[in-house]
Amino acid sequence: MDLTGLEPGYDIPALPGMAEAEIHTPCLILDLDALERNLRRMAGIAAAHGVALRTHGKMHKSVDVQKLQQEIGGACGVCCQKVSEAEAFVRGGITDVLVSNEVTHPAKIARLAALPRQGARVSVCVDDLETVAALSAAVQAAGTELVCLVEIDCGANRCGVTEPAEAVALAQAVAAAPGLRFEGIQAYQGDVQHIQDHTDRAEAARASIAKARAAVDALKDAGLPCGTVTGGGTGSFRFEAASGVYTELQCGSYAFMDADYGRIEDAEGRRLDAEWENALFVLTSVMSHVKPDRAVVDAGHKSYAIDSGLPVVFGRDDLSFLGCSDEHGKVLDPEGRLKINDRLRLVPGHCDPTCNLHDWYVGLRGGRVETVWPVSARGKVF
Amino acid sequence: MDLTGLEPGYDIPALPGMAEAEIHTPCLILDLDALERNLRRMAGIAAAHGVALRTHGKMHKSVDVQKLQQEIGGACGVCCQKVSEAEAFVRGGITDVLVSNEVTHPAKIARLAALPRQGARVSVCVDDLETVAALSAAVQAAGTELVCLVEIDCGANRCGVTEPAEAVALAQAVAAAPGLRFEGIQAYQGDVQHIQDHTDRAEAARASIAKARAAVDALKDAGLPCGTVTGGGTGSFRFEAASGVYTELQCGSYAFMDADYGRIEDAEGRRLDAEWENALFVLTSVMSHVKPDRAVVDAGHKSYAIDSGLPVVFGRDDLSFLGCSDEHGKVLDPEGRLKINDRLRLVPGHCDPTCNLHDWYVGLRGGRVETVWPVSARGKVF
Repeated sequence: MDLTGLEPGYDIPALPGMAEAEIHTPCLILDLDALERNLRRMAGIAAAHGVALRTHGKMHKSVDVQKLQQEIGGACGVCCQKVSEAEAFVRGGITDVLVSNEVTHPAKIARLAALPRQGARVSVCVDDLETVAALSAAVQAAGTELVCLVEIDCGANRCGVTEPAEAVALAQAVAAAPGLRFEGIQAYQGDVQHIQDHTDRAEAARASIAKARAAVDALKDAGLPCGTVTGGGTGSFRFEAASGVYTELQCGSYAFMDADYGRIEDAEGRRLDAEWENALFVLTSVMSHVKPDRAVVDAGHKSYAIDSGLPVVFGRDDLSFLGCSDEHGKVLDPEGRLKINDRLRLVPGHCDPTCNLHDWYVGLRGGRVETVWPVSARGKVF
Repeated sequence: MDLTGLEPGYDIPALPGMAEAEIHTPCLILDLDALERNLRRMAGIAAAHGVALRTHGKMHKSVDVQKLQQEIGGACGVCCQKVSEAEAFVRGGITDVLVSNEVTHPAKIARLAALPRQGARVSVCVDDLETVAALSAAVQAAGTELVCLVEIDCGANRCGVTEPAEAVALAQAVAAAPGLRFEGIQAYQGDVQHIQDHTDRAEAARASIAKARAAVDALKDAGLPCGTVTGGGTGSFRFEAASGVYTELQCGSYAFMDADYGRIEDAEGRRLDAEWENALFVLTSVMSHVKPDRAVVDAGHKSYAIDSGLPVVFGRDDLSFLGCSDEHGKVLDPEGRLKINDRLRLVPGHCDPTCNLHDWYVGLRGGRVETVWPVSARGKVF
C-alpha cells in the first residue's frame, strides 16, 4: 500500500524503516517472525490431517495478513462475518470468500449476489427458507451464482438449525433454487473454544461434532452429500481435524494469539501460548507515575477489547495490569521500576475486537518497522 | 462534508435523504431532536450556575457535534484526551482545545507545541516536573505558547498529584517556565460519576471537591490563584457547578446518554435518562430467528462497547438483550414477535467507546436521514 503523505502521529503510528522506539503509541504491533512461525505451523497441521484451512478474516480484517496466510500458511481462502468485510477482501484480491454467517437484508443480499462478478467464488450460510428464496432471486437478477452452506447449531444457541430434518429441508430448498449451489454445512461452536481444561473442552467438542455428524448423515440419507463441513477454531481445531466429519477448519486467533486463548490448556496441561506464539501486541507508553507503586499507560480500552479480560504485560513478571478506563491503563509496579515514556507490550485479552479498534498494523523485525499494513476491513460491520 | 462517491453498505451506512428503513445496519444513529434538547438543557444549567462548559470531545470524537455544542449548547470549547484528537478538532475548525490528560512522549509534545500555530488556544495537563521542562523546551522551539493545568488526583487513583504541596511545586515550575502559562487545576473524578444512589454519589463528590478546594487554597496561599478549576462529568456536574470551587464543567455523555448513566438516580430517585434523553442508538436488524423465543441481531460487541454492561433494547418492554459475541447479539423474544429483518434501536451501555467503533453518525429527523457526520477522531488514540 502506498503510504505517501500519511503523517505519523496523526494518520498512522509509524512508517517503514523507523526504529521501534520512534513508533507513536498506543498502536498494534506484529512480531513478524512469530507470526510467520504460527502460520507455517498451522499449515502443517491442516495438511497432516488432510483438511482445508479457511483462515478467519474477522480476526485480523487484513488483506495483507490473509495473503501471507495463503502464501505460506496453507490457507485455501478466507471466511469472514459480514458482506462489507467480504467486499474488502475481494477488492483486495482474495478470490475465495465464505461469509460464515447469515445475510438476510435485501440490500445486503443484493451486494452479496453482485460480488462474484468481481472474479470471486463466494459462499454464504443459510438457516431460513425465506432467505434461500431471496438469495436465489438476487443471484438470478445479478447473473451470478452463490455457494450455500446450511448452518447448524451445534451447541452455541445462536444462529443455525438444531434438528437434522430442518437441515435437510433447507438443503433441499437450496438444491432446488436457481443460482444457488448446495455444498454442505457450517457447524461452528464458539462456546467450546475457550474452555480452559482440556478434558472438559474435548468432551464439549465431541458433543458438537456429534451434532455435525448427525446432520451430515441425514443429508446423505436424503441424497444431499456434504462436500464441505466447515467449523472449528483455535481452541478446538484438533478435535474437528481428527473427526473424520469436518473437511475444513476456520481458525483465526492462532495467527496472533491472545491472553484468553493463551490460558487454555492442551492435553499435556501446557498453556496454548506455549505452542502458538504471541505475535500481536498493543504497544503502550508510561504517561504518569505519580504514585511510587503504580504507573499509568497511554492505552485504555479504546485500544484493546476487554470482553475476555484485561491485557497482560508481555515478558514482565515484575508488573501486572490492574485495570483500565477509556484511554488509560493502570499497571502495578511494586518495585517502582518504570519511568515516564518507558514502553510495554500488552497482550490483549481478545485479539479480534482489539484489531477492529485500530487502522494499522506495524510489522516489526529485528527492532525496526518492516511494514505497515492497513486493517483493511476495520469498521466494516454492515 | 462532501459525501460524493461514498458507497452505502461499504463506505457509509446511509446518505442524506434516505428513509430510516434503507439504512445499512448495524450503525450509529442520532435522534437530532433529542440531541438538540439535551444540548440546550445543559447550556441553561451551566449558565444558571455561572460556570463554563467545555464539552468532552472524547465522547463523540465529532467536529460536527462539537460545533453544534458551541452553536446551541453553550460550549466554550472542547476537551479531549489525546494529541491526535486535539489535532482533529483544530483541523476541523475548533479553536479552543484542552487536552485533559498528560502528554509526555517527545514526539507528542512536539506535535502539541506546534498546534497553536494553526490558530488555536491549546491547554494541557501536567503531573510531573520533567514533563514541564520538556513542554517548555518544545514551545520555545516551536515559537508558541501552551496553557497548563496541574492535574490533581481527587480520588480516582490514576493521573495527578495527591498532596497540595505537590500541586504548588508543579504550578511554580509551570509559572517559571518560558512559553507555559499556569492557569489552574484539573480535578476530575471518574469513579464518582456512575454511583447509582444519589446520596452516595453526593458524598463521594463532596470528598473529591474537598480535594480540589484544598489544592486551590494552597495555590492561592502560594500566590498562584487558579483562573480555571475544571472537572465534573454527567453523573456529578451539579455538585461541581454548585461548589463555588469549579469554574468549568467537562460533561460529555449528557449529549447522547447511555444505558449505564441512564440507570443512576437524581435527588428525587428518578433515573438520569428521564432528564437526559437517549439520543444515540445502535441500529440493528434481526438476522436469524430459528428458535421461537430468541432472535439474533446483526450487532455484536464490535458495534457497541460492553465495558459498562450490555445494550438495552429501546422502547420495547417485550424484549430483553441476553448477550453478545463479536458480530451477533441475542435478544430474548418470549412471545416470538420479531421476524427476520425487523429493526431495533439499542442503547449502548457506554457511549464513548461505542462511538469510537464507528466511522459515521447517521442523524435522523422525522424518520429520514438529515445528515451523516464522520466520527472525525475515530481511531486517533495517539
